[in-house]
Amino acid sequence: MSLDHAATKPHERLADALSEDMAAVNAMIRERMASENAPRIPEVTAHLVEAGGKRVRPMLTLAAARMCGYEGPYHVHLAATVEFIHTATLLHDDVVDESSQRRGRPTANLLWDNNSSVLVGDYLFARSFQLMVETGSIRVLDILANAAATIAEGEVLQLTAASDLKTTEETYLKVVRGKTAALFSAATEVGGVIAGMPEDKVQALFDYGDALGIAFQIVDDLLDFGGTDAIGKNIGDDFRERKLTMPIIRAVTQADAEERAFWERTIAKGRQEDGDLETAIAILKRHGALDTTRETALSWAAKAKDALTSLPDHEIKDMLSDLADYVVARIT
Amino acid sequence: MSLDHAATKPHERLADALSEDMAAVNAMIRERMASENAPRIPEVTAHLVEAGGKRVRPMLTLAAARMCGYEGPYHVHLAATVEFIHTATLLHDDVVDESSQRRGRPTANLLWDNNSSVLVGDYLFARSFQLMVETGSIRVLDILANAAATIAEGEVLQLTAASDLKTTEETYLKVVRGKTAALFSAATEVGGVIAGMPEDKVQALFDYGDALGIAFQIVDDLLDFGGTDAIGKNIGDDFRERKLTMPIIRAVTQADAEERAFWERTIAKGRQEDGDLETAIAILKRHGALDTTRETALSWAAKAKDALTSLPDHEIKDMLSDLADYVVARIT
Repeated sequence: MSLDHAATKPHERLADALSEDMAAVNAMIRERMASENAPRIPEVTAHLVEAGGKRVRPMLTLAAARMCGYEGPYHVHLAATVEFIHTATLLHDDVVDESSQRRGRPTANLLWDNNSSVLVGDYLFARSFQLMVETGSIRVLDILANAAATIAEGEVLQLTAASDLKTTEETYLKVVRGKTAALFSAATEVGGVIAGMPEDKVQALFDYGDALGIAFQIVDDLLDFGGTDAIGKNIGDDFRERKLTMPIIRAVTQADAEERAFWERTIAKGRQEDGDLETAIAILKRHGALDTTRETALSWAAKAKDALTSLPDHEIKDMLSDLADYVVARIT
Repeated sequence: MSLDHAATKPHERLADALSEDMAAVNAMIRERMASENAPRIPEVTAHLVEAGGKRVRPMLTLAAARMCGYEGPYHVHLAATVEFIHTATLLHDDVVDESSQRRGRPTANLLWDNNSSVLVGDYLFARSFQLMVETGSIRVLDILANAAATIAEGEVLQLTAASDLKTTEETYLKVVRGKTAALFSAATEVGGVIAGMPEDKVQALFDYGDALGIAFQIVDDLLDFGGTDAIGKNIGDDFRERKLTMPIIRAVTQADAEERAFWERTIAKGRQEDGDLETAIAILKRHGALDTTRETALSWAAKAKDALTSLPDHEIKDMLSDLADYVVARIT
């Protein structure tokens, strides 16, 4: 797999292979995010649609359904559902994080106000719910309802775990599942369910999405301490927001008295000064925390690929396997 | 019906008649609003449970189901669902309105922060969704998904319609359905659906909840300009928040130049001074806007009672009829 040639990026190959389905998803998203009754809604949602993004999550649903031979219409509804849930959480996240930029553009809470972001997020969540009801599958509704609860739980957990040096890797993993992996795994799982796959294959699809999401989030957290800045994220953002991510959690457990005082001041108390990010990176490197975190991300990517082995051979399966490699390629 | 004797209030008689069911609903609410993973969640939700409230909405679901002869277990899930949706919207409303008090107690956004209110609201919404999935009824899910979308749409509409003197009664009614009637009508409708009632009876239950909710909200809006303060609401709150409610909408259409200037200054521009509320009430009275609004509320209460006529005779039906009278008794 050549990573440096744009046309061969696995998500782009997936987008090519699923282009008709993705066009249907995009049309459904545009149609369903409008509202005749409240003009503010289409203003905000149009801004979100224009901001684009790679639409990885709906693509995972389409990919899972197609790989499993699904020929019905509902993978489109489910892909749109997944994107709506994602967009709703982004709107609320930006309010909670007081963000002013996402994907290089001003956020909705900046362009309008927090109230619009909260309420339009609620609207999109309700719309996502209507879309999945149309599939008529209680099983699918159950999976997505559970994912929605895990997402909200993870967000609340992140709120209280931030700046708490006692945060464990177990808690971090719950936060990561909430932030990223719960929707990835639901996205792939419902693709298999709607295609009527047997339990073990549905479980494999869940495992793939779960491991891919965890790898994706660990990589994202790792890049906060360096790496290329291709996704519009600034180095040190998480550090400044005092988020306990895997590298810091690992370094804290090995900290000597002086390092402990450093983490207490910068993370627990939030009294940060110029040069603290550089000091943090030096401490992380001293304990090998960046290296072991990188290894952990790679092992989750390997788990994602392993999960695919039991699934039917298909060109899309190969792309999903490459996608797992691609997610961690940013840190290798 | 005697309104001045506490024990005969119709919602209290309903609570008596449905006491076993309500105990099951309260137990389910306590069980399902906990979260092992994120300790902030039970803190916030315990505060909400303690704050209490009359639980009118879950009672409507139980009443509708029992009146229709339902003997299964799922009216309890649906009643808890309805209360969770209501609680989630209250959490988000208090953030949007920057409220500091509700039911005479400090709000969650004041005790914790806006972020907790946004995210715990999302969690309760997801939990409500899990609860209704357990009923296994796609029809019920469809009704509640539509209600959730109408609620969010109404909230966004209220955000943009506030302070806009061009707001029509049609828009006001959409806001009222979003704020109140959509959940009332969904609450009664799903009670009939789960009981397997024929379409015309389900429609009658919807119509009852819809009309009751509209009457309830118009009364609430009317009491902003006077009346007893039994519900912890301060007179003039809506006026200070520049909300266009039915009395003002009607007075604006009849305003002379001087009155028009008054509404422009106080509502459109929000430059309010001491004595403005009294002037507003004087203008409303001059045009009979309080009287005609009262008549409109009474006519919605009458519609609610009419809707009940096609439903089976039952002691609960009589209580629901009395409830419609009681809702408007505060203004008669």
